[in-house]
Amino acid sequence: MKMELDDFLKSRKEKIEESLFSYIEKLKAPEVLKDAMNYSLEAGGKRIRPILVLALLHTYSKQEEIGLATASAVELVHTYSLIHDDLPCMDDDDLRRGKPTNHKVFGEAMAVLAGDGLLTQSFSLIANDPHISSEKKLNIITELVHAAGAEGMVGGQVADMDGETKVLSLEELQYIHEHKTAKLLGFAIIAGAILAEAPVQDIKYLREFSYHLGIAFQIRDDILDIEGEQDLIGKPVGSDQGNEKNTYPSILTLQGAKEKLTAHVDEAKSILNKLSVPATLLNNLCELIANRNN
Amino acid sequence: MKMELDDFLKSRKEKIEESLFSYIEKLKAPEVLKDAMNYSLEAGGKRIRPILVLALLHTYSKQEEIGLATASAVELVHTYSLIHDDLPCMDDDDLRRGKPTNHKVFGEAMAVLAGDGLLTQSFSLIANDPHISSEKKLNIITELVHAAGAEGMVGGQVADMDGETKVLSLEELQYIHEHKTAKLLGFAIIAGAILAEAPVQDIKYLREFSYHLGIAFQIRDDILDIEGEQDLIGKPVGSDQGNEKNTYPSILTLQGAKEKLTAHVDEAKSILNKLSVPATLLNNLCELIANRNN
Repeated sequence: MKMELDDFLKSRKEKIEESLFSYIEKLKAPEVLKDAMNYSLEAGGKRIRPILVLALLHTYSKQEEIGLATASAVELVHTYSLIHDDLPCMDDDDLRRGKPTNHKVFGEAMAVLAGDGLLTQSFSLIANDPHISSEKKLNIITELVHAAGAEGMVGGQVADMDGETKVLSLEELQYIHEHKTAKLLGFAIIAGAILAEAPVQDIKYLREFSYHLGIAFQIRDDILDIEGEQDLIGKPVGSDQGNEKNTYPSILTLQGAKEKLTAHVDEAKSILNKLSVPATLLNNLCELIANRNN
Repeated sequence: MKMELDDFLKSRKEKIEESLFSYIEKLKAPEVLKDAMNYSLEAGGKRIRPILVLALLHTYSKQEEIGLATASAVELVHTYSLIHDDLPCMDDDDLRRGKPTNHKVFGEAMAVLAGDGLLTQSFSLIANDPHISSEKKLNIITELVHAAGAEGMVGGQVADMDGETKVLSLEELQYIHEHKTAKLLGFAIIAGAILAEAPVQDIKYLREFSYHLGIAFQIRDDILDIEGEQDLIGKPVGSDQGNEKNTYPSILTLQGAKEKLTAHVDEAKSILNKLSVPATLLNNLCELIANRNN
């Protein structure tokens, strides 16, 4: 199982990166802008969101090629959000995945614009996807705006900033991470399901699944900040605590956060059992996200 | 004529603003984010881009209601671009249309996010427009990405920043303003033409028209910075010269810039004569843009 999953992740990551870089390459834009966009795209990472799009197609036995444009789009949006999050006026981070952040290399103005460019282009990838119907494209664009915009990730980021100076309740923390993290992961899953023409009832289950997976993803992030290895997570261990950030461990204790993580993963996995198809791959991805070291 | 045009502008401006504010009002997002988005939308201005969308429908004797969502979308994109342009790391402007800029009121982080939110939501307005076909929506989304993204406005802004430290040729200045200004104005016109189901040949002419109108718009801006009244333009007169900015007057002299403006306006108006319909309204809007005092 482990070997198969590793193969799946590795081969899909390659396909996605090929698609991403060839898309940016073709843009008729100033080279320095393309360099700045590429820099953060290349900084890479696990490509979890685009892999989820392809994993849904795989789960419903559909051609994964159909998902490549949407998979690339969600990675553009994720990358834009990292660039803007790292800005001095936001989290003011100098390192991301062990490399200097975008504004450290290209300057703040270019980092703002590289983010703006990545966000804008993501919609073109979907709108011009040759594989899918117009209705599906518009459905997916609507889901993307909902997940990434004021009602999703951007709203979550605002709530996060707002909460920085106070001690949050668990409910307030959940609101932040549902919007800031879970919604875009959820977009990847729902868009994949739309592309795979999953039954309506499955899509409802998958929305619930996304919520639990997204929260689990974030709790694991918080735990890694305490227990992780700096070389693997690409930033200093303990930085949340140093910044007095509201985290699951700070509200629930480390042990409480671990129990919460297990509860969300169990819930996510039990929802997968209700789908109309076997969901081994999603189940394995869920395990991987809950136990990852970076 | 003057009276009719004034009536057209005033009544359409009201409709557009109503549509904009009711859209933001309905978003399920943190109030402070909605306030920040609204603040810059309310700061207003002439609403030239959305009015152009409606003017195209008017020109082709179609219901203007059809254009309201796209008109609102282009104003969201324009407003996002102003918020990000004004940031300390970009133009570092404290005033916009005589009011404190977004980051002066809400802080830099919120200004970045308000801009991100406005840009993202613009695509939802188009994707969920109940009046138009899926094909048209996707056409318009593609045009919007092309006009606003790395190949358009964002690319133009990068070229502008890049040119700040050198003396530009006229060709380099044209590249900047074609991308930074003319493309989004052009989007408004082309989207309006698509919505109005204008003949393919007309759309080709309208692309040429947009180019000349957009450059004329920018030259007028540069001239107003020298000859305008501070109360009307909402910023100090002569600020371009103080900042040693590359402008049409700095390259061509003030007299040369005025001649260039006239040449572009004449060219724009002569293209309108080739359309399959009478274009009195577009002609009048063109005059207005070339002679505006703010």
